[in-house]
Amino acid sequence: MTEPMTADDPVRERARAAHFVQSLERGLNVIRAFDATTPQMTLSEVAHATGLTRAAARRFLLTLVDLGYVRSDGRRFSLTPGVLRLGYSYLSALSLPEVAEPHLERLVASVHESSSVSVLDGDDIVYVARIPTSRIMTVAISVGTRFPAYATSMGRVLLADLPGPELDERLDRAANGPITTRTTTDPEALRREIDRARRQGWSLVDQELEDGLRSIAAPIRDAAGTVVAAANISAASSRTPAARMRRELLPLLLDATAGIEADLRAARR
Amino acid sequence: MTEPMTADDPVRERARAAHFVQSLERGLNVIRAFDATTPQMTLSEVAHATGLTRAAARRFLLTLVDLGYVRSDGRRFSLTPGVLRLGYSYLSALSLPEVAEPHLERLVASVHESSSVSVLDGDDIVYVARIPTSRIMTVAISVGTRFPAYATSMGRVLLADLPGPELDERLDRAANGPITTRTTTDPEALRREIDRARRQGWSLVDQELEDGLRSIAAPIRDAAGTVVAAANISAASSRTPAARMRRELLPLLLDATAGIEADLRAARR
Repeated sequence: MTEPMTADDPVRERARAAHFVQSLERGLNVIRAFDATTPQMTLSEVAHATGLTRAAARRFLLTLVDLGYVRSDGRRFSLTPGVLRLGYSYLSALSLPEVAEPHLERLVASVHESSSVSVLDGDDIVYVARIPTSRIMTVAISVGTRFPAYATSMGRVLLADLPGPELDERLDRAANGPITTRTTTDPEALRREIDRARRQGWSLVDQELEDGLRSIAAPIRDAAGTVVAAANISAASSRTPAARMRRELLPLLLDATAGIEADLRAARR
Repeated sequence: MTEPMTADDPVRERARAAHFVQSLERGLNVIRAFDATTPQMTLSEVAHATGLTRAAARRFLLTLVDLGYVRSDGRRFSLTPGVLRLGYSYLSALSLPEVAEPHLERLVASVHESSSVSVLDGDDIVYVARIPTSRIMTVAISVGTRFPAYATSMGRVLLADLPGPELDERLDRAANGPITTRTTTDPEALRREIDRARRQGWSLVDQELEDGLRSIAAPIRDAAGTVVAAANISAASSRTPAARMRRELLPLLLDATAGIEADLRAARR
């Protein structure tokens, strides 16, 4: 289950505002209760996962069935592809993936490594575009996948553009624990890495998110100079030394982000 | 705006069931009101797009802001990447994209054309995985994109597995009008094409969805023999004659779908 809501969740605290429509929150939590480990659930399982009564869970599930977002075989419920309409609203509202895709495709064709674009959402980066290589060893990551920002190269260039106090707050939360033996979690060491990313205009992260995986990222800025996204190249560490990433791949990545920035400005005109 | 809800919409008719949570429907419609043509909207624009009063639209928007699905610059509202969590619940609950991806990657590497997997949702196909080629001319289609099933090769192999009466109903709706000058819309002619797809185990659609685009598709069946998805190869008609698609690409596509089916059965064990 992804992030079950608990009584002391800050979202619940905010839930007491006068405008708050609690049944919308509950219905969205029912959708989010389905995931890779629980693709099909009975009414009782949904009630348990969401903290709703069985009667409430039933009302939300049947409403979602009526609306075409959920289907049922009589006993078990599962999501339909209709749910993609909700996430797709965001992707189609964002011109970024469409603008970035041809640049990433050229980049992947020339470096033979995977390339992605992500945006910052809270403490996570979220993939909004990805071009895999045709190598069999490609890591399977799809649009919508999330990773903790502090442990990724794209996350560090995105964090680097945050105002000071906001960055402090996120760095404090990063100390939750390492992901690999190499993950930097000390807030001061992380801050130095993020400062470096800001100064040099790129970030290289070496097996801090996953053993055997290196990634180099650069920011994508809008016309006002605000960092709106990041693009990266990721590669197996066994195949691609860090020095080669900096020397050979980085210039091509920076060409691609400059191309994306130019097209974004042209698209806004 | 995608599919604005109207008073005589069948969804509204069903909305009268005792269990129906109308505020969930309304909140989800607010999310769906944002799209490529209206990525940012004022309160009045959201109210207009959804048919809600300004007061109701405000409650739903502020609730979605509290929950992290929408943000506001004070005047205009837009979706956040948090919305991807909703569609992502479906994708991560579906093991199909992950299972299919390595097979599609091998296929794309060998044929140098794009390949996709889609599922049927009502009258549409919805892309759940896609591997573009590195050719610059690639058509930009992302996961979540929808096309009318009857005019696509993947749609025809998916429709071919429907029970008779369900197929009849969808073919009647297909006669809404052609998409290109070549689109088959006559229900009887469509039925013949779909019967052919069922008999031969594949479908070739030549510029019926888009001028200059040819696509060949094959079904993906689960262990019980039910068609759960379709995979295709699409190519520019100027570059790839239909005869080459049948002779050279089809055998490789059928190898890929057989591989996906074997892995799906193994994953379920």
